[in-house]
Amino acid sequence: MRGVVMHTPGDVRVEERDDPRIVEPTDAIIRVTSTCICGSDLWPYRGVEPVEHTPMGHEYVGVVEEAGSEVRNVKVGDFVVGSFVISDNTCEICQAGFQSKCVNARMVAGTIGTQAERARIPFADGTLVPTPGRPDPDLVPSLLAASDVLGTGWFASVAAEAGPGKTVAVVGDGAVGLMAILAARHLGAERIIAFSRHPERQKLARYYGATDIVEERGDEGVARIKELTGGLGAHSVVEAVGTQESFMQAVGATRGGGHLGYVGVNYDVAIPGIELFFAGIHTLGGPAPVRRFLPELIQLIWDRTIDPGKVFDLTLPLDQAAEGYQAMDERRATKVLLQP
Amino acid sequence: MRGVVMHTPGDVRVEERDDPRIVEPTDAIIRVTSTCICGSDLWPYRGVEPVEHTPMGHEYVGVVEEAGSEVRNVKVGDFVVGSFVISDNTCEICQAGFQSKCVNARMVAGTIGTQAERARIPFADGTLVPTPGRPDPDLVPSLLAASDVLGTGWFASVAAEAGPGKTVAVVGDGAVGLMAILAARHLGAERIIAFSRHPERQKLARYYGATDIVEERGDEGVARIKELTGGLGAHSVVEAVGTQESFMQAVGATRGGGHLGYVGVNYDVAIPGIELFFAGIHTLGGPAPVRRFLPELIQLIWDRTIDPGKVFDLTLPLDQAAEGYQAMDERRATKVLLQP
Repeated sequence: MRGVVMHTPGDVRVEERDDPRIVEPTDAIIRVTSTCICGSDLWPYRGVEPVEHTPMGHEYVGVVEEAGSEVRNVKVGDFVVGSFVISDNTCEICQAGFQSKCVNARMVAGTIGTQAERARIPFADGTLVPTPGRPDPDLVPSLLAASDVLGTGWFASVAAEAGPGKTVAVVGDGAVGLMAILAARHLGAERIIAFSRHPERQKLARYYGATDIVEERGDEGVARIKELTGGLGAHSVVEAVGTQESFMQAVGATRGGGHLGYVGVNYDVAIPGIELFFAGIHTLGGPAPVRRFLPELIQLIWDRTIDPGKVFDLTLPLDQAAEGYQAMDERRATKVLLQP
Repeated sequence: MRGVVMHTPGDVRVEERDDPRIVEPTDAIIRVTSTCICGSDLWPYRGVEPVEHTPMGHEYVGVVEEAGSEVRNVKVGDFVVGSFVISDNTCEICQAGFQSKCVNARMVAGTIGTQAERARIPFADGTLVPTPGRPDPDLVPSLLAASDVLGTGWFASVAAEAGPGKTVAVVGDGAVGLMAILAARHLGAERIIAFSRHPERQKLARYYGATDIVEERGDEGVARIKELTGGLGAHSVVEAVGTQESFMQAVGATRGGGHLGYVGVNYDVAIPGIELFFAGIHTLGGPAPVRRFLPELIQLIWDRTIDPGKVFDLTLPLDQAAEGYQAMDERRATKVLLQP
């Protein structure tokens, strides 16, 4: 089959890879019908994270082609959405809603590589969720978004305790930040402040529910949030960039006793303990337990209550993956959908 | 009046200081009847935090001697317990229970200095809580503990979401750690694991409710907690030491989706963002909003339901403060009570 492999930073190729096969009786093989490029794929692309002949991709929707003998919840022919973290969904940690820390957790990224025609999904029952039927084509981008960016943005807003009466600030106007805005609106937040200096993304941020836009960053950004909140800071802050500056901006924007949800940090971030301490805030972060939210998100998409698919602003055939990476790296595209 | 001043690291003197006076109509002057030395007083003592002719002390109980014209909730003659952070207890942050981040917050440490015969307490209505009457002498150490170590340990256990069905691990066997154990038991935790290698403190930890003692530290300590919890880690972890090693030990001991409450970090702590991220845990820390808990804690002490005063294992006259600092620095004493 054809699949994307990143040989070294910046060197993305589509080449022949081995067809996946059932290895464990809990595996399923899916034919990937849509996949995409994630902001986190840019870390190795830019050399911030190590990469060496790595099969790429961890977001996916597709059709089950083969199911192991112990798979019960999905069957051949089902259209499925899967999380970017494999989980059994039965262990104590999964049952508490933290499937990305499942005792059997495994990252799809770097091992399975779903920017490909097919993929083997371990713990298929715990990782995949079937849609109510074969989706209309216009719903597919939204369902694909649920696999990571929507699920991650949603988790970030839940982690930040966005809700009625709350002011939510979102650091980051990439796909995850935009999805956090959509989630905060759905969760009933009163006011949603988006940090963005990119006109197209500001437009999308407003479309998804942002009530205010702040263009300043760092300490100036924090000062602006304070101004907008009577000096107190936001109740809820989402961090969806992952650099040292953005993380500390998010800490500074959170009021004492407020909640910070963060969904990605790069390897260089070192949080000064004393600053976090004196901020006096709640934090919750980590790879999002997307699996927790998938059934609800699929239903919301199916019912056309939310339309996260608008974050995809470039669609390319899988063979042009390299162009997709470049477009995202140069910020010409927010998020690129790939068609195997 | 007589009061403790730290001139330089290690140089603690009791000397004549100006008598405090009412400055604002919301002030009260209290006669300090008991005060004490805090583990955090050892940071400047050891030169880890800056100090220069600093009036010391932030824990106190005493009798109101004078009240400003706008003070309503306490009156002359009341026996009061106060928080180590001044708060108005009326602003939006206070009302949300985070009085240590009050818009009028001020640290008692380093400015007011309650290791003294008298102290001016700003925002007396928001900072002080009167006891139901004049306390029996044996209750005084417990009431004094409520001013910081008990309130702080209590907050740490609440922040860690200690409660029924939970396994709680407490990093730190100093006074705050011991008080966190007391709190975790009161909050109904099923199992309380204390990290301690000090026989006397192990005994006190068990007295306050620890069910297990772990002597290992760092990665070995984390491995031991994992062994004791079926590989998952503790649901709730309290960090009550404040060093890099202890903080990362606490992070490592918390299960995915679990809660870490931390109540002190020194200036050198730098938390690797990527480790915190992949831990996938909730955190809440900061100077404890002791004022939130004072009414409840005073009542529990008054009813003799809890006896936190046992953490004081050395009582000295104020004039011997220097000996008290030395005893705590050398770990000959867990916590020193000073009698002005």
